[in-house]
Amino acid sequence: MDNFTLNIPTKIFFGRNQIKVLGRQIEKYGATRVLICYGSKRIKREGLFQTITDKLTDRGLFYTELGGIEPNPRITSVREGVRICREENIDFILAVGGGSVIDCAKAIAGSVNYEGDPWDFFLRKAAINKAIPIGTVLTLAATGSESNGNAVVSNIETQQKLAVYSPILWPKFSVLDPEYTYSVPPFHTAAGIADIMSHIFEQYFSPTPDTFTQDRLAEALLKTCLKYAPIVMEKPNDYTARAEILWAGNLALNTLLSLGREGDWANHSIEHEVSALFDISHGAGLAILFPNWMKYVMDDNNTDKFYNLAVNVFGVAESADKKAAALEGIDRLRTFYNSVGLPARLSETGVEEDSLRKMAEGAVRFGEIGEFKKLKSKDVLAILKMAY
Amino acid sequence: MDNFTLNIPTKIFFGRNQIKVLGRQIEKYGATRVLICYGSKRIKREGLFQTITDKLTDRGLFYTELGGIEPNPRITSVREGVRICREENIDFILAVGGGSVIDCAKAIAGSVNYEGDPWDFFLRKAAINKAIPIGTVLTLAATGSESNGNAVVSNIETQQKLAVYSPILWPKFSVLDPEYTYSVPPFHTAAGIADIMSHIFEQYFSPTPDTFTQDRLAEALLKTCLKYAPIVMEKPNDYTARAEILWAGNLALNTLLSLGREGDWANHSIEHEVSALFDISHGAGLAILFPNWMKYVMDDNNTDKFYNLAVNVFGVAESADKKAAALEGIDRLRTFYNSVGLPARLSETGVEEDSLRKMAEGAVRFGEIGEFKKLKSKDVLAILKMAY
Repeated sequence: MDNFTLNIPTKIFFGRNQIKVLGRQIEKYGATRVLICYGSKRIKREGLFQTITDKLTDRGLFYTELGGIEPNPRITSVREGVRICREENIDFILAVGGGSVIDCAKAIAGSVNYEGDPWDFFLRKAAINKAIPIGTVLTLAATGSESNGNAVVSNIETQQKLAVYSPILWPKFSVLDPEYTYSVPPFHTAAGIADIMSHIFEQYFSPTPDTFTQDRLAEALLKTCLKYAPIVMEKPNDYTARAEILWAGNLALNTLLSLGREGDWANHSIEHEVSALFDISHGAGLAILFPNWMKYVMDDNNTDKFYNLAVNVFGVAESADKKAAALEGIDRLRTFYNSVGLPARLSETGVEEDSLRKMAEGAVRFGEIGEFKKLKSKDVLAILKMAY
Repeated sequence: MDNFTLNIPTKIFFGRNQIKVLGRQIEKYGATRVLICYGSKRIKREGLFQTITDKLTDRGLFYTELGGIEPNPRITSVREGVRICREENIDFILAVGGGSVIDCAKAIAGSVNYEGDPWDFFLRKAAINKAIPIGTVLTLAATGSESNGNAVVSNIETQQKLAVYSPILWPKFSVLDPEYTYSVPPFHTAAGIADIMSHIFEQYFSPTPDTFTQDRLAEALLKTCLKYAPIVMEKPNDYTARAEILWAGNLALNTLLSLGREGDWANHSIEHEVSALFDISHGAGLAILFPNWMKYVMDDNNTDKFYNLAVNVFGVAESADKKAAALEGIDRLRTFYNSVGLPARLSETGVEEDSLRKMAEGAVRFGEIGEFKKLKSKDVLAILKMAY
């Protein structure tokens, strides 16, 4: 176990009708002028937007809006948000949606007081050291972005999808009401669960030795996904199932699982390359890639980790042949993803085979990726081919 | 799952040599005059006190000390601390020790600006609404008090041991260096582990339905205790074992496990009555009580919880006879406590049999205790007799 600091500054208000805290929470930061960021019109159709604006108006808070933020949020939306913030003297950003909306809101918040172009942060030309406060209302279980300082944004012109981190980008508060996720369609629900599971895997498959407690916590959250995914696919309005998955998604990426160890974010890097070129769902991309990554990187030195996953999470029987049991676990993961309607191959999703090499090269643009196993361009290409 | 708010304001600095952050962290709160609270002279003998005062002096911070805080900290120590704080214009309290020292420091911090007697808070005659900031350096894995707003203090005159809670009593930061726990003697190490496991049980045995994720997280921490207790008893200087137990102890009572459900703190209430009359170790008292409480409260409606504990944590084979498996789990808990040298009966610890009735009455002075199963005085007496 490595040294670490536990510091979770985001307050989570979890459960039915927790939106009631909204106005008071925004006022805590001395804010009076709010930019509401959102993606699809679902939140208007279903009344959530009205509920939110009523709460703001009740307390005399000004608001304006930036809608239509894309599923893989674009730097152009960030620029537009910055423009509105400056024009309207915005002092608080409320992101209502999933990871894309929240990430876009973070990028806007960090760019308002920066003279250059927001894309500079993603190219590592500048560091975010000032941000206006943000809060979130989560409408999709997937991201974890509601409790961390990460943001991922796409640039269509340059065909890049890049990440930025700053401790000042953590939301001040996040409202997690499971009922707001009832209307997420089946495919997106499944893709969200795959995203959550990927976040857990990316911390579980760590090169750091002696992470017993952290591994067991990770397995606990994976069990939640496996237990409640079939229920939520069957009964989208099941409060308990939506709540358990929403809660697991938050814990999966609020930094708890990452404490005291290095993670391995290679799959996210690879998937970002895929969805930079083809507009496929992030979670679906990860569901395709992960079982293939697992098979590719498993070797005689790291079988134990895959064996533990198989036995502790996927219910594979204990066995002297650890490798066989580990492979059985990976197969069960694949079967699970299939069972919730996620694709098994990149070729099913419109990805073109002759783009794989470009993706592989893009993934390693800053050098080798991965920590559990270092991957070069040729390794990434091999995984992409297995996944095609 | 009930609605909840996740808000963990204490920063945890975990690992070797994290004491390096001390001065800067204290200064963050504008403090210049520090009261160092501690219990035994162990921290002086082993150099930790010197390390700490060097860090304070280096940054020009004034300090004075309150040593000799008792294992069940007394209200007289709180009063003495308050006197020193007022006399020396203390603006920060640093607790160096385990739960007793931290709890005493919290009670002092909350009483400095109160005109009445500190015991008023424990009798619920007054509420703590102002406190000077505190930080902690943990030297024992047990309490969880380094990451919450609870304090338990004893009054020898009135033979009471009572608890107080206030959100403003959360430490600003806590330093958790596993090496500081190397010299904890075997019995206290074991008692600390029993205390941690009791905290987990008291949240696990919840009457709230649908707590799947929370239950699996609790089981993860119990597994850590079971795995590393024998190692740490054998090799007290094993960094990994000390680290895993220290980390589990923190997570067991930093409110994470309690989110979304009611707990059942009956065993703590009962144990407080025992140790109010007889100076037995808190953890040892809990290790005696818990298996008996489990057997007493288990019935046909709640067998599943005990069955899950047996199968998921104690490795009991799955069985159609859930009750038998559950009882086997409780027996394994008892065997585990014996294996680390903890007593099995109150009669072994100097507790007098004719005091049991008084303890039972004291435990319910504010009404029935427990939520998983409500206990009246006669139930508490029955458990105490089983445990004698």
